Amino acid sequence: MPAKKQLIGSADEVEAAFYDAMSRADLDGMMALWAEDEEIVCIHPGAARLIGHAAIRSSWESIFERGSVNIRPVQLHATHNMLTAVHSVIEEFQRTADGKQDVHILATNVYVKTPHGWRITMHHTSVASGKAPLDMFKASVLH
Amino acid sequence: MPAKKQLIGSADEVEAAFYDAMSRADLDGMMALWAEDEEIVCIHPGAARLIGHAAIRSSWESIFERGSVNIRPVQLHATHNMLTAVHSVIEEFQRTADGKQDVHILATNVYVKTPHGWRITMHHTSVASGKAPLDMFKASVLH
Repeated sequence: MPAKKQLIGSADEVEAAFYDAMSRADLDGMMALWAEDEEIVCIHPGAARLIGHAAIRSSWESIFERGSVNIRPVQLHATHNMLTAVHSVIEEFQRTADGKQDVHILATNVYVKTPHGWRITMHHTSVASGKAPLDMFKASVLH
Repeated sequence: MPAKKQLIGSADEVEAAFYDAMSRADLDGMMALWAEDEEIVCIHPGAARLIGHAAIRSSWESIFERGSVNIRPVQLHATHNMLTAVHSVIEEFQRTADGKQDVHILATNVYVKTPHGWRITMHHTSVASGKAPLDMFKASVLH
């Protein structure tokens, strides 16, 4: 599915397109999902803050040179209004060879409604110690 | 200044009140700044995700038992619309005795406009290696 079509969709669809672009190391497809605003922010796990298209594009270019990134965003918690969607997800990635993970990655993804559709304005990831916890809230409440 | 008065202010004022409450270890004052929504999210540096008032309040209670937290949010980059403000800041904290810091803390603070005024819906912090960089963009552009 071309990125252009996805841009007119919901924040959820832009999020799916974002992780899909990572899995295909599709730099142009990924960058087209960001808002046309020089105040966009991207923070990779454990890394310094990147601001604006040039710095963010350059970082993903370096990452994709090492290959694609296979992440499944799980345990979504969201708050949203007509103009903004704030998503908190756990980024589930490929387990190591011994099947153990002593850290997990948390992401805050913020989407804003623009004249071109929903776009990413913030991607902030961080490393948390320990395995990803079970989502007790989601396990007991369907919504 | 009582927290109640600050709640009717702007997102910037709520952010100032948030860090002020930390500096006074004022648990009730801090919690009053959060949105009345069980989907609120707080991620402390290097820690797992906390969702909802009870878990978030409990974490700050534990932190404040060890004393107040003196942080100055600097190098603000923001995107906002009528209903939401997304702030990215560097959390400048007290330097160690030898004056060296080999990490810095980044925070994403998201504020939403509610019937009671602007409130916090997300506080996501992460540890970044190295000293906080100079903000080249801010250094060259006044806005």
